[in-house]
Amino acid sequence: MINGERTIARPLRWGMVGGGRTGQVGYKHRTGALRDGTYQLVAGAFDLDADRGRDFGTKLGVAEDRCYATYQELIAAETGRADGVDVVSVATPNFTHFEITKALLEAGIHVICEKPLFFTVKESEEIKALAEEKGLIVGVTYGFTGHPLVHQMAAMVKKGMLGDIRIVDMAYTHGFNAGDDVGAPEAVQWRTDPKRSGPTFVLGDIGTHLYYLSEIVLGDIKVEKLLCDRTAFIPSRAPLEDHATVLMHYDNGARGRLWVSSVDAGNMGSQRYRFVGSKASVAWSDSHPDQLIYQVQGEPERIMHHGMPYLEDESLAADRMGALHTEGLGDSWSNIYLWIAQAIDAKMRGDDAFLASHHYPDIHAGLEGVRWLENCVKSADQDAAWVDFE
Amino acid sequence: MINGERTIARPLRWGMVGGGRTGQVGYKHRTGALRDGTYQLVAGAFDLDADRGRDFGTKLGVAEDRCYATYQELIAAETGRADGVDVVSVATPNFTHFEITKALLEAGIHVICEKPLFFTVKESEEIKALAEEKGLIVGVTYGFTGHPLVHQMAAMVKKGMLGDIRIVDMAYTHGFNAGDDVGAPEAVQWRTDPKRSGPTFVLGDIGTHLYYLSEIVLGDIKVEKLLCDRTAFIPSRAPLEDHATVLMHYDNGARGRLWVSSVDAGNMGSQRYRFVGSKASVAWSDSHPDQLIYQVQGEPERIMHHGMPYLEDESLAADRMGALHTEGLGDSWSNIYLWIAQAIDAKMRGDDAFLASHHYPDIHAGLEGVRWLENCVKSADQDAAWVDFE
Amino acid sequence: MINGERTIARPLRWGMVGGGRTGQVGYKHRTGALRDGTYQLVAGAFDLDADRGRDFGTKLGVAEDRCYATYQELIAAETGRADGVDVVSVATPNFTHFEITKALLEAGIHVICEKPLFFTVKESEEIKALAEEKGLIVGVTYGFTGHPLVHQMAAMVKKGMLGDIRIVDMAYTHGFNAGDDVGAPEAVQWRTDPKRSGPTFVLGDIGTHLYYLSEIVLGDIKVEKLLCDRTAFIPSRAPLEDHATVLMHYDNGARGRLWVSSVDAGNMGSQRYRFVGSKASVAWSDSHPDQLIYQVQGEPERIMHHGMPYLEDESLAADRMGALHTEGLGDSWSNIYLWIAQAIDAKMRGDDAFLASHHYPDIHAGLEGVRWLENCVKSADQDAAWVDFE
Amino acid sequence: MINGERTIARPLRWGMVGGGRTGQVGYKHRTGALRDGTYQLVAGAFDLDADRGRDFGTKLGVAEDRCYATYQELIAAETGRADGVDVVSVATPNFTHFEITKALLEAGIHVICEKPLFFTVKESEEIKALAEEKGLIVGVTYGFTGHPLVHQMAAMVKKGMLGDIRIVDMAYTHGFNAGDDVGAPEAVQWRTDPKRSGPTFVLGDIGTHLYYLSEIVLGDIKVEKLLCDRTAFIPSRAPLEDHATVLMHYDNGARGRLWVSSVDAGNMGSQRYRFVGSKASVAWSDSHPDQLIYQVQGEPERIMHHGMPYLEDESLAADRMGALHTEGLGDSWSNIYLWIAQAIDAKMRGDDAFLASHHYPDIHAGLEGVRWLENCVKSADQDAAWVDFE
Repeated sequence: MINGERTIARPLRWGMVGGGRTGQVGYKHRTGALRDGTYQLVAGAFDLDADRGRDFGTKLGVAEDRCYATYQELIAAETGRADGVDVVSVATPNFTHFEITKALLEAGIHVICEKPLFFTVKESEEIKALAEEKGLIVGVTYGFTGHPLVHQMAAMVKKGMLGDIRIVDMAYTHGFNAGDDVGAPEAVQWRTDPKRSGPTFVLGDIGTHLYYLSEIVLGDIKVEKLLCDRTAFIPSRAPLEDHATVLMHYDNGARGRLWVSSVDAGNMGSQRYRFVGSKASVAWSDSHPDQLIYQVQGEPERIMHHGMPYLEDESLAADRMGALHTEGLGDSWSNIYLWIAQAIDAKMRGDDAFLASHHYPDIHAGLEGVRWLENCVKSADQDAAWVDFE
Repeated sequence: MINGERTIARPLRWGMVGGGRTGQVGYKHRTGALRDGTYQLVAGAFDLDADRGRDFGTKLGVAEDRCYATYQELIAAETGRADGVDVVSVATPNFTHFEITKALLEAGIHVICEKPLFFTVKESEEIKALAEEKGLIVGVTYGFTGHPLVHQMAAMVKKGMLGDIRIVDMAYTHGFNAGDDVGAPEAVQWRTDPKRSGPTFVLGDIGTHLYYLSEIVLGDIKVEKLLCDRTAFIPSRAPLEDHATVLMHYDNGARGRLWVSSVDAGNMGSQRYRFVGSKASVAWSDSHPDQLIYQVQGEPERIMHHGMPYLEDESLAADRMGALHTEGLGDSWSNIYLWIAQAIDAKMRGDDAFLASHHYPDIHAGLEGVRWLENCVKSADQDAAWVDFE
Repeated sequence: MINGERTIARPLRWGMVGGGRTGQVGYKHRTGALRDGTYQLVAGAFDLDADRGRDFGTKLGVAEDRCYATYQELIAAETGRADGVDVVSVATPNFTHFEITKALLEAGIHVICEKPLFFTVKESEEIKALAEEKGLIVGVTYGFTGHPLVHQMAAMVKKGMLGDIRIVDMAYTHGFNAGDDVGAPEAVQWRTDPKRSGPTFVLGDIGTHLYYLSEIVLGDIKVEKLLCDRTAFIPSRAPLEDHATVLMHYDNGARGRLWVSSVDAGNMGSQRYRFVGSKASVAWSDSHPDQLIYQVQGEPERIMHHGMPYLEDESLAADRMGALHTEGLGDSWSNIYLWIAQAIDAKMRGDDAFLASHHYPDIHAGLEGVRWLENCVKSADQDAAWVDFE
Repeated sequence: MINGERTIARPLRWGMVGGGRTGQVGYKHRTGALRDGTYQLVAGAFDLDADRGRDFGTKLGVAEDRCYATYQELIAAETGRADGVDVVSVATPNFTHFEITKALLEAGIHVICEKPLFFTVKESEEIKALAEEKGLIVGVTYGFTGHPLVHQMAAMVKKGMLGDIRIVDMAYTHGFNAGDDVGAPEAVQWRTDPKRSGPTFVLGDIGTHLYYLSEIVLGDIKVEKLLCDRTAFIPSRAPLEDHATVLMHYDNGARGRLWVSSVDAGNMGSQRYRFVGSKASVAWSDSHPDQLIYQVQGEPERIMHHGMPYLEDESLAADRMGALHTEGLGDSWSNIYLWIAQAIDAKMRGDDAFLASHHYPDIHAGLEGVRWLENCVKSADQDAAWVDFE
């Protein structure tokens, strides 16, 4: 159980690029990073509007002279300080992830980046190689994978409690884009513009969450081929999609179904997962994240609650509130941020043994998300044909 | 609201073929037919074992001399009586549906048949033509489509309360066949044998329920092309399937997803439906059938309850218990049986006007279910390729 | 599992008093009685308006000359026939239950009566003595206590699966009387009039369901003292109540809480029960009747589903639809009616051994409901003071 | 919406008494206080074991010389520093709250204290007077009342959306003490010992949460008389209770029911609230805190989700994560801590106008909780008689 005790040598000096006052996601980063004294927010280029960014940064407690107009300024100034940032989070639109991450790594700064990481596998591999060369960490904020019950599912699959995995059913749908985009906020505008969003809209924006979480739970089981059927119910979003179904065949014979949509009018269910094995199934949703449905065929259905002693150690280790007390998305983010901090700390200490067994959403996870998107688009572009996963 | 008052000229004299003591489905027919005095059970060939069938039939109140050894005997004897059966229900394994239905129609007897109706579209068209020629009704027992809230969904779509339909998401999965079939009961054995089950297992057994209900709700919107990915996790069931996903493109641009499985270990959710429109969505499941989720984008989710005055007339007309009081599968079957009786009664009276506007699961519904199965198999046999629906 | 096979010597000839076209409850009796060929509806005095009653009765399939204007006529005529009614159901307003039941019993006719049975314990004891003297059955239609999972709870308590019972928490609340009664239908008018409803409104109308079901589950554990706090939020209903809380102390030390209300605006939850023992709890509601929550302290919560092999024999014996298939209020009523028929049949055959171990809602159950109401009113009339249960 | 921007002049220098490594509640305080840069943890007397407390404190980032052995030491040292603590949280067993709070206030330090605040109303009034005299804030950590939907309920009641309030139904029950206390952890031992817990166990431990939240929602409506029936199913806990029911009559005619228990075996539902008005009801539970059930009689039930634009301003102002993203107990605590910080800041600035309209769980809220407990005990001690609330 996590109680706020520091598990790393010293708090990390942390900066942000993006995540300004009006952004959707900046506060999620900050509430994830700051609650345990693991990170100290000391610098930022929070906003395209430099004045607004400076005003906002100082309200966050950042010294005025460390509120920068651009990420380039931030890098230049921070690398010149003895107490410069250790790590910077990138919370900007997709199309800037690659150049900012690359620049940070080249300057010797660890990176935590929003998903989808980059536009292409090629870019992702380039960054991966660069990070390895520089001895730096790149973490990816798959926000809800920090929840204790995600790791309960993974542990149950690993122990064989489900038997052989047969079916994976996943969905992340909502209806916030059910109407057209006339007058929509900037966060919608860039997400539906291929130049700024990359080759996908909802597949990258929400589908990558599903895919990464399923990778955690499935362990060694990998996609072998897939089919992606995508469409834009609001025509102006084409060629990007506001609805897609992906069918997957896994290398162990399992079958997967994945649904993402932002035009699922009125749906407030958010992410839903179901892993079916030959003996039992588990189901979990981030809309009621503190309960895990565990169904052994022929037995009463079971509902497991976070923080209870009957859970696996991997799950209890990630608990913060204890049973009966709801954990939210913020708690999950704080685990992700903690695990990334532990990786950075180990990297700084040269502790490869720790890193070898330490789990967090790393550059590999980010790269695999991009690879999955590339395969989805390849299939979709062939009129939703089956493609071998590569 | 239905209160048991007779709506037809006289009770129908009713017989059964199959539906014996140990069968799964016979009681569903009887409890559906008998509660309102609309049908009187007067004859039957209930069992392959004639003695057991006779013993069972008399325990159901059928005269001993009208408990027959075979359906052929039943037809021969009943057609020779002035008070012979008006209608016979066929509750036997799939491979016998065609021959029994044909023989009954040729003998001038109305038929109520289990789904999937027959093996092929060709057979279905032959029976359709025969029924028309003979002036007889063929009803199909899509059991849960009698529920008042199914007709609420249809009425809401028709009124435009959902806007343009965009997405149809359906599933009927359970785990009762998660294990292999060694020692399984006869009801499983024949369903997994292509000679007796026909070209599908779960697609026909449970998928046709989904498809027919969606037809009721969608009205004029039709499938244009589909893709069916099926597999048998228990290899002995191949070439039939215990798991399948069907993707559908509709002629209005809508996209459909359908999942059927009998190896979804531990799932007790039964049938689940979600119809998404440009303005709102509705969702319904037969596991909690008395509530309908109605979600207008941007408004609080709404839960509608059966029997409440705010529902559409079509729904209230099908209600039996009134609000607060749960309606079950049996109540739904009793509506189906009532509507079929009303069709038979109208046919007997030559009331074509009534029949023109009367809705019940008819031979057309049965035929369309078989057509859908044929298209699914055609796709599956081409390694899950897209096929034009024909 | 119940499959419609007759378990009694011959179908009972059945009549109804009340339960006419516009009544709330008549159809529940009929759909409960008629589905299995156990009862044949042959006579009735369905309505205060004789013509309307006759019209309605014939539409139910009753011969015109057996549709009577009054219950007195019914008794006079039916007792004069060789094929006169065996049993009559009383579905009239409360104030007529006593006189009609008494007259039927005196005429040698078994009775099935609505709850609350009578106004006083004294009346109930008089009827009990009369029924015993005459060798007749009086059944009481506590409608939802026929559900298989009610008997699952009773069996679990009996086996000690819950440990010592400590807490009983029950509620039956709805909001259909949240507004005042101006222009309300007759069914509301008589229920809020002490002359016709008796000493209570919601305590008798819905509270007796809770109390009887708890008696089934609790077995030998009895109320020792209670406190009833009642009020009428709509003043015209006073001295009757539209809201009441009853606290109970049981003789084993357990504590009970019971809530009834018809002004619980918008509540569609109907009946809810929770039985807490030293080891585990069970919870059940008739709004989702097919699942039973079973919670062992320190273990994952379990959801049990009706019809599943892991249930106790007592529960499986009462199942009609099988697992996955929802059972509704009508199915439960049909069990109650079946069990009463079996009691009548045994009484006719003089089979005291069967009766000694046969469970159904009998005159004792009805009497105990009235006794509980008397104690509630006694407490309420003393400003909600504790009273010894007597 | 809260995004982490500082709303006070400077971060508060914060200390803790109690809340050590093994305590249940310390981390809730820290995760609530530290995420927004509003508080800086600079001092503490975390543990009765001074070495363990120092080790723990330094792991939390507190300087070693500001980790004190006792609260007396903390006060002495911190008041001697120019940068001494502004505010101290008291997270110790109940029996120490009074003396520690008093000492802190006398030393000029603001206080945030666990509930139940003190043992008696007299003590509470003494502290209230002292705080006023000293110009200091006393906040009370009613943890879940920071949730946005709590304030949605209050706003709806205030606007009259429910009509006149008639019924209040509340429960906070769990089963973690279903077994006896042999070998139980210290957190259980002191809570069941009157000397250390005060006059109640579960009434104070969890019941005060219910009562305070209901005060927020009910506004001007006050308890007029009440009855408390309490018992100890584990006899060693007597005279304290592990189960209690409280009935309340409010001054507007409304009736209340409240249930607290720690022997409700297997219950994981935590806090549940239902407020019923003449027009509509609202229901909320902290186990699924992000949805609010809103039921207008005669209309479909509505589920409102946190963060949605249709909510009242009071609710949206308290949101942190935005719609679709679960808020947990920690988010709620962070609101409470923020609101208390704003009160302290205003007090420091002498901004009485702000304080007059600023809502947070203050000394008055704490005092009223103690008053309610005193009334409950008074009733319970008279064999659960009605007592006038005073």
